Amino acid sequence: MDNYTLDGAIGSALTGSTETLLQKGAIGVHAIGIDIGGTKIAGALVDELGTIVREARVSTPAGDPTLLEDAVVAMIEELDSGGDAVAVGVAAAGFIDAAQSTVYYAPNINWRNEPFREKLEARVRHNVIIENDANAAGWAEFRFGAGRLVSDMVILTIGTGVGGAIVAGDSLFRGGFGAGAELGHMRVVPGGLLCGCGAHGCIEQYGSGRALQRIANELADAGGIGQALAAVRESKGELAGLDIFELIMAGDPGALAALRQLGDWLGQACASLGAVLDPQLFVFGGGVAQAGELLLDPIRQAYLENLPARGFHPVPEFKIAELVNDAGVVGAADLARIHAEHR
Amino acid sequence: MDNYTLDGAIGSALTGSTETLLQKGAIGVHAIGIDIGGTKIAGALVDELGTIVREARVSTPAGDPTLLEDAVVAMIEELDSGGDAVAVGVAAAGFIDAAQSTVYYAPNINWRNEPFREKLEARVRHNVIIENDANAAGWAEFRFGAGRLVSDMVILTIGTGVGGAIVAGDSLFRGGFGAGAELGHMRVVPGGLLCGCGAHGCIEQYGSGRALQRIANELADAGGIGQALAAVRESKGELAGLDIFELIMAGDPGALAALRQLGDWLGQACASLGAVLDPQLFVFGGGVAQAGELLLDPIRQAYLENLPARGFHPVPEFKIAELVNDAGVVGAADLARIHAEHR
Repeated sequence: MDNYTLDGAIGSALTGSTETLLQKGAIGVHAIGIDIGGTKIAGALVDELGTIVREARVSTPAGDPTLLEDAVVAMIEELDSGGDAVAVGVAAAGFIDAAQSTVYYAPNINWRNEPFREKLEARVRHNVIIENDANAAGWAEFRFGAGRLVSDMVILTIGTGVGGAIVAGDSLFRGGFGAGAELGHMRVVPGGLLCGCGAHGCIEQYGSGRALQRIANELADAGGIGQALAAVRESKGELAGLDIFELIMAGDPGALAALRQLGDWLGQACASLGAVLDPQLFVFGGGVAQAGELLLDPIRQAYLENLPARGFHPVPEFKIAELVNDAGVVGAADLARIHAEHR
Repeated sequence: MDNYTLDGAIGSALTGSTETLLQKGAIGVHAIGIDIGGTKIAGALVDELGTIVREARVSTPAGDPTLLEDAVVAMIEELDSGGDAVAVGVAAAGFIDAAQSTVYYAPNINWRNEPFREKLEARVRHNVIIENDANAAGWAEFRFGAGRLVSDMVILTIGTGVGGAIVAGDSLFRGGFGAGAELGHMRVVPGGLLCGCGAHGCIEQYGSGRALQRIANELADAGGIGQALAAVRESKGELAGLDIFELIMAGDPGALAALRQLGDWLGQACASLGAVLDPQLFVFGGGVAQAGELLLDPIRQAYLENLPARGFHPVPEFKIAELVNDAGVVGAADLARIHAEHR
């Protein structure tokens, strides 16, 4: 396809997206977003442009789920002291059902089939939705960050693991059971490295921050361009992510080679995701994405090399995420407001 | 997750689906579906329950695209002699833009960036949409076949190649450029077999009818359980798909082993698709799917073995497609009618 058609397609997507944004409600409507992590609970009152008006933070109570519920209720009451929030969105790691009501399974919290929405709605005066944390953060990036000008986006968050979210036709893609967009667990190598999910060969084992450490250590073992990596490892006892990042920024050939290998795997995974999902835009967030173009270059190259029907298939853009902190709370609040407006 | 929650999720999906179906319009509304193949053009007048009221068929004119256009216009006029069709849907292999208007690229037809919708609408009195043929056939299966009780479905058509379609939230998933759901070109083996799309290791090379032939020939070469396959190949000069199918149905261990290997690859691919798309149902169509449970069994087994977060992740159903012929025309007609009703 030629550029003319491609531009045309992007043009209509822009129009579609803008219309949706204008329908989102009157200026000044606020919602509360809560992000329950394994160690802390973050919360914020967020306006309809994604700006945080007020925020709060506490440690995640360990053990008894009732203590966690109490902490979330207290945070909602504190954030809504002005009484102008229209809804509450709660983000947590795990599988949430398609009705955004029940947490099937949360790896960091002692929840199994927890009807958290019902429990919260019984205690606060707001409508509540529950959302997977990667979905909430991805939605914030779509609405207020790198994805705000497209209708169809895939975001991959390259932290310790690989998380992700899908936006399709201006809507968050949740899947039939609410457990979709587990993008870190798409398989890239049959019989490959064992993943924490119990399967083998997931992209999380080849494209995550932890994978970057593994590759850097392998290069340090191999000598050659890995010499600077080996020297840092010897002086510090281990190669932490920050060490590797500093060597990348200093232009060390070994650290750059490790990053290129990571980007190569991610680009290969994106080619498969492109065949299935056909987004206009891939966004990369998380700590490793701070490498910017140094990460995007090998991703783009591997994508094109592995793209089916290359030359005929439309080619998406590749960008670094713009939102860094608080994407989870901002996205959860925005999803809750939109849900409340369509109720 | 336990069965209770799983049933709950499916229950709400059913409700959603039923509501959508009830909104589809008054009884008696007809639409025309046209399926342009490489060798023939099939067309039908279809009612709102997917029943074919009248049908037509001609050879695909070779060469000049104007002759193709003339043939489609003549077929529409013939099918609409009663004047009660509300819209026309045209299905063709290839990439169709997200506005369902322009064919970027069609492998079997001499089209590049062809504005076929505009051209047809200038010549017939109907609203027209263009749809990818696998999408149209998958939509028919969703509306009137194995998928009619779910909201989120993935269909894989196992013919010479592997085609597919995605339905998410009761809607056909097209992707940001309209080129999504190219499920046969998800990669399952890095650096694997070269595919007709130019990439390596696509599932089409491991899970298609052609792959079944390759596996059967390898088993025939290897002797052992491949002896019956080798004998048929020797007597007929080659192992055609029908020969393999007859041996499968006769319970030949070699032919069954070939089919199990095919199903194993398909189940592995579905585990990755499950992580990304999380459908409630996988449907298998195409010639190879006539093997029924003999194909589904290894698919289900490989799916569970490769499913990330097994034990926590909801598990979809696996079914054989119910519609055999005319799914393309029925789906194209239905999509055109729905589109016309929302215009």
